[in-house]
Amino acid sequence: MSIQPAPGDKFSFGLWTVGWQGRDPFGDATRRALDPVESVHRLADLGAWGVTFHDDDLIPFGASDTERDACVDRFRTALDATGLVVPMATTNLFTHPVFKDGAFTANDRDVRRYALRKTMRNIDLAARLGARTYVAWGGREGAESGAAKDVRAALDRLKEAFDLLADHVTEQGYDLRFAIEPKPNEPRGDILLPTVGHALAFIGRLERPELFGVNPEVGHEQMAGLNFPHGIAQALWSDKLFHIDLNGQTGIKYDQDLRFGAGDLRSAFWLVDLLESGGYDGPRHFDFKPPRTEDLEGVWTSAAGCMRNYLLLKQRALAFRSDPAVQEALRASRLDELARPTLAEGETASSLLSDRSAFEDFDPDAAAARGMAFEQLDQLAMEHLLGARG
Amino acid sequence: MSIQPAPGDKFSFGLWTVGWQGRDPFGDATRRALDPVESVHRLADLGAWGVTFHDDDLIPFGASDTERDACVDRFRTALDATGLVVPMATTNLFTHPVFKDGAFTANDRDVRRYALRKTMRNIDLAARLGARTYVAWGGREGAESGAAKDVRAALDRLKEAFDLLADHVTEQGYDLRFAIEPKPNEPRGDILLPTVGHALAFIGRLERPELFGVNPEVGHEQMAGLNFPHGIAQALWSDKLFHIDLNGQTGIKYDQDLRFGAGDLRSAFWLVDLLESGGYDGPRHFDFKPPRTEDLEGVWTSAAGCMRNYLLLKQRALAFRSDPAVQEALRASRLDELARPTLAEGETASSLLSDRSAFEDFDPDAAAARGMAFEQLDQLAMEHLLGARG
Amino acid sequence: MSIQPAPGDKFSFGLWTVGWQGRDPFGDATRRALDPVESVHRLADLGAWGVTFHDDDLIPFGASDTERDACVDRFRTALDATGLVVPMATTNLFTHPVFKDGAFTANDRDVRRYALRKTMRNIDLAARLGARTYVAWGGREGAESGAAKDVRAALDRLKEAFDLLADHVTEQGYDLRFAIEPKPNEPRGDILLPTVGHALAFIGRLERPELFGVNPEVGHEQMAGLNFPHGIAQALWSDKLFHIDLNGQTGIKYDQDLRFGAGDLRSAFWLVDLLESGGYDGPRHFDFKPPRTEDLEGVWTSAAGCMRNYLLLKQRALAFRSDPAVQEALRASRLDELARPTLAEGETASSLLSDRSAFEDFDPDAAAARGMAFEQLDQLAMEHLLGARG
Amino acid sequence: MSIQPAPGDKFSFGLWTVGWQGRDPFGDATRRALDPVESVHRLADLGAWGVTFHDDDLIPFGASDTERDACVDRFRTALDATGLVVPMATTNLFTHPVFKDGAFTANDRDVRRYALRKTMRNIDLAARLGARTYVAWGGREGAESGAAKDVRAALDRLKEAFDLLADHVTEQGYDLRFAIEPKPNEPRGDILLPTVGHALAFIGRLERPELFGVNPEVGHEQMAGLNFPHGIAQALWSDKLFHIDLNGQTGIKYDQDLRFGAGDLRSAFWLVDLLESGGYDGPRHFDFKPPRTEDLEGVWTSAAGCMRNYLLLKQRALAFRSDPAVQEALRASRLDELARPTLAEGETASSLLSDRSAFEDFDPDAAAARGMAFEQLDQLAMEHLLGARG
Repeated sequence: MSIQPAPGDKFSFGLWTVGWQGRDPFGDATRRALDPVESVHRLADLGAWGVTFHDDDLIPFGASDTERDACVDRFRTALDATGLVVPMATTNLFTHPVFKDGAFTANDRDVRRYALRKTMRNIDLAARLGARTYVAWGGREGAESGAAKDVRAALDRLKEAFDLLADHVTEQGYDLRFAIEPKPNEPRGDILLPTVGHALAFIGRLERPELFGVNPEVGHEQMAGLNFPHGIAQALWSDKLFHIDLNGQTGIKYDQDLRFGAGDLRSAFWLVDLLESGGYDGPRHFDFKPPRTEDLEGVWTSAAGCMRNYLLLKQRALAFRSDPAVQEALRASRLDELARPTLAEGETASSLLSDRSAFEDFDPDAAAARGMAFEQLDQLAMEHLLGARG
Repeated sequence: MSIQPAPGDKFSFGLWTVGWQGRDPFGDATRRALDPVESVHRLADLGAWGVTFHDDDLIPFGASDTERDACVDRFRTALDATGLVVPMATTNLFTHPVFKDGAFTANDRDVRRYALRKTMRNIDLAARLGARTYVAWGGREGAESGAAKDVRAALDRLKEAFDLLADHVTEQGYDLRFAIEPKPNEPRGDILLPTVGHALAFIGRLERPELFGVNPEVGHEQMAGLNFPHGIAQALWSDKLFHIDLNGQTGIKYDQDLRFGAGDLRSAFWLVDLLESGGYDGPRHFDFKPPRTEDLEGVWTSAAGCMRNYLLLKQRALAFRSDPAVQEALRASRLDELARPTLAEGETASSLLSDRSAFEDFDPDAAAARGMAFEQLDQLAMEHLLGARG
Repeated sequence: MSIQPAPGDKFSFGLWTVGWQGRDPFGDATRRALDPVESVHRLADLGAWGVTFHDDDLIPFGASDTERDACVDRFRTALDATGLVVPMATTNLFTHPVFKDGAFTANDRDVRRYALRKTMRNIDLAARLGARTYVAWGGREGAESGAAKDVRAALDRLKEAFDLLADHVTEQGYDLRFAIEPKPNEPRGDILLPTVGHALAFIGRLERPELFGVNPEVGHEQMAGLNFPHGIAQALWSDKLFHIDLNGQTGIKYDQDLRFGAGDLRSAFWLVDLLESGGYDGPRHFDFKPPRTEDLEGVWTSAAGCMRNYLLLKQRALAFRSDPAVQEALRASRLDELARPTLAEGETASSLLSDRSAFEDFDPDAAAARGMAFEQLDQLAMEHLLGARG
Repeated sequence: MSIQPAPGDKFSFGLWTVGWQGRDPFGDATRRALDPVESVHRLADLGAWGVTFHDDDLIPFGASDTERDACVDRFRTALDATGLVVPMATTNLFTHPVFKDGAFTANDRDVRRYALRKTMRNIDLAARLGARTYVAWGGREGAESGAAKDVRAALDRLKEAFDLLADHVTEQGYDLRFAIEPKPNEPRGDILLPTVGHALAFIGRLERPELFGVNPEVGHEQMAGLNFPHGIAQALWSDKLFHIDLNGQTGIKYDQDLRFGAGDLRSAFWLVDLLESGGYDGPRHFDFKPPRTEDLEGVWTSAAGCMRNYLLLKQRALAFRSDPAVQEALRASRLDELARPTLAEGETASSLLSDRSAFEDFDPDAAAARGMAFEQLDQLAMEHLLGARG
């Protein structure tokens, strides 16, 4: 297996990732702005397949229609020249101070209406550029204090917004689905829909739930101390993994957006194992920030590292799954039994009640004595991850 | 308002809470076992309304049918003598080593079947004792290592289990609904359905979702760093707050189960504010562990403190909401505008698009200049909480 | 007791606190810049006693000597007009991109030398303005990846820097001591001297340890999940609490810098209790950021709230300590016994060995049966905090 | 390099690690008790070098002198038979309920005296068995509520205890030093000396500081979100790394005690890199708990995994350091410049002040433009860790 990225790997990058200038809460920019056209070319050279954007990444906030058209034309030319696709786009509803209290759930109604219009406008552009997924990260939808946001009212407003956007997409006939991106906090003290679970539950109450899925980000779930592959598994189980943001995070702290493979490496291994075996065929989208210690050369090194690490982990995950010793260990740990329904075919509550072997004649102490052999299995995984087996 | 607990307050306690003997991962029991009958009487004396139990709290694991009947009879006599009700019951699927790898999602199929039977058996008792809610905490449904649990298969098994239990309750005609209790970790490294959001999302995929809601526990969500009142608000918004576990926790660490009011006090204030104003009329159930430093007198002091703190916070929340200065501050923060739909009546995507005031003529800089006045509002809340206003 | 702030309360504010414009990792400034002179006057009006600054707060980075003098003169005039003092100053070694890899521990030696000179220059100004404490927050001294910083070499460089600065202060005859401010992370992935403990330990290895103490910040320790009053107690126990930064934080997440009293309220209560009873007579310095949702009116409301909350908590802490029921509860919890040495006067290891009552005749089970009565004590504290007693 | 453990690797295990029966806060034991003699033989078979113990691991609490002698004799025989050494011992001051409020800092003075005697008794045994390090983990020294522990008084008691123990060791002429083991919480809500930093600072105030160092445990520091190798580096820098507890932890949550290599793998890599290059020549002590899902076979698999993972990581760390591309990358990141003093030989504060190149003629913008090349360096580390280079 090659660890040279190729379009078939479906690696995509946001313009705002490699283009991040390194401004942080305590410091000024350390790098110059990158022209989106330059980014497209560099990403293509590195082997990426797609590029994604917020409206304001591509077209400066407040640009005239003429400037806007010029930006889009130059971008499209670069796409054509490189063959890069635009699998996803999203709206910047967080940078301008007008969104300081939120966008779709801002207390101010005119801000909410403006946010909807800003989003609809970029949806139109996204559709024109061929995007199939529209990501919605509500980073400012939240609060720092208890009475500042009536969460139930805010969820009503959030549902109203997404229902409207789904109507818009449907009426326009766009082949576009939404992916909601959860995050627990930062930049707000607490953000609505803080985890994959909360977003999945919210989607179930929308008018067109089929148009909505999730866009989980590694670091966001880890900021809540959650097991990222477990969350992805639940999203897949719900047929709702529409997109994914890959990056790295070293535990519960501020949002680090390290390159993929940095941070929790074992979790990254299990994630790639799951994505590659779990039927997900969407983009592998890197949403990271090259550390502000880096110059532009470091930016491209970091971007290349994201892809290379994914491919290395994929290689190791495939080797793990195909190793006969692993397959034996999985059986010893009874993963095959977990895959088997608990009830026999046609068995009902009452038939279960009449099965004495299930309760009256079951010996819990004897069953408890069986070891699960998980340490052996996990040690094999460890050794595959370290490249220490074959 | 009285801060003397009364049955109308619907305060309930688990037998396992006051009965906790203080065994922890590093130490032996510091208190003798409590007879459930003694607990019922003491709780009634303190002003509690209800008592709840795991099967094994009431009836020793492995008891004969005769012993079982005797335990139930003595318990029922105590209930009758005191007037305490049994609003909820649940199953112990975690103490016996047979559940070391889970119950409904154990890799071993016979363990899963046994867990179902153990649960069905206690559901029958719960129904007989008049419980209306059956709590399911899957504390052992999880893993410490990545390959040990195929999460999608495990969710299939979990759905299978709950669908069967719902069938059972329906067939038996019990007036009983299930409340799933999420927890992120401990005693497993990662537990399935780690937050309120994940549980709500899971419920949406069950065969009889109307029979399932959540039983959030203060400390469990806080172990993931989540804002507890926010999670409760989403559960209420989803009509799924079937039960609640009140206790205290000091941040992201092991499960502390402090008495209600200990831990994050501001969060407790907003929680009571929400429960009292949000239409929740179920039990206020305390699921706490009196610290093992306490003797039995300290246990009852701690239990009394749970109720007293709830009532004190209720008093302050009501004073907060009825203070004209607060009402003025809420308007200054435009909470009234948040309650108002974003769209006008009958407005659609296309009519929004044609409203120039929403976008073309909207001045984001002017809108951004408006302060939200949240600090004033939160300071008023602080002073009500401290009892420093009238 | 008055809850009107007065100079005797020694409340001080950083220019950068009320002057924070609301720029965060995801958003632009929401407020205009504040002139330091305006801040001095407003703070004085609110009842503050002191004002503090980073060099760049007062004098724009790169200003000429003439501009510099003008800035200082205007500031001094405002101080004279208002009576505000400058109890502390500090250096901005984090905003300019030159410090992207640190200041005293930057890998680049010329950056380290520049950082020292920038600091010495501001120390001179601090001394001229009468400051008695010079704070050193090494926010950029750290790393995001493992090999990027040799921590032992970096600690050598950090010691070298502080030893030099101590020489400088000594040679110049300044009446100035240093207070090191720990923080675990943000803006670096991991920062050197992450907690109060690490800073205290480091100080012990400097050449002039007597000139160095700590400046703990509420939120910084809480970002590591640590009990802030416990850390302050160890600093006091070590005679090293030279200064303190008061603010609020809601658990382990990004650095929130909420106003004092927001965040963990119980911890704030115990902190004020400790500061007021523990012999600390230095400034009560607020290092907070008024949320970016606020306009300037909200900024001053937030600043006033910091002081008001301190005074309210002080009132409640004094009432707690003077309540006879509390004093009785403290005895019931044997705090008096904790204050008593474990050894009798003159007792040695060998005399302890010969005391049979200490071991051979000691009955651990009987001793274990004694309850500690902590729940009663903590409930009294809770009720004092809520203003629910007398 | 062999990845077969050998005595020269200095791998040691606590009796309580492999002997852990799997009792946790929610569940009963899943494994039978192990005879210490059996453990000694099995560990020797696996390639371990040493075994360590709490007094109560070896000799049941409350055993008569005869029983005690028999236990020690059998243990010594097993040591002789296998060649295993006892590099360290420690006291169990946490399991018996008498220690529910602490040992050296219990509010009850007689408990403190008893704890000292229990410790002195086991120190004598440790010395007899040849131990050179005596670990002190004060797991019960802490509190769950604010007034329950006067931390300054408690630190006085803790100092009193350690000063006495140091006197005892000195008077007896034992060749034994103490290693204090920090932990932030669990089983107490907050524990005194919560991190390596706090312990180092505390040691500086003891009467015989030279007899005291630290015994950091991977998971304990990670429970505070701290970078473990950074803490170890500060301990080494202070010449205070007397012992180390190796295990695994997956972030900020309950104490997991996973086998070494599980949890944060990148951190484990940097740790081994540091231990192997940093001059530490003490034991590599595994303080882990084989998950309760495992039977005894799994226990030994898990123990073997600890050692194997250490050796694999050592192999990768050595390869990383000897790779010419890495050495080049380290230079590109200017690690060599960090190793160089900031001041020239003989340079003083005043000579630095007169160096115009350090400030007046220094161009911060030009310096800021230099990239640090850390991403390249970290990517090389990643690939060595994954075994993907040579």
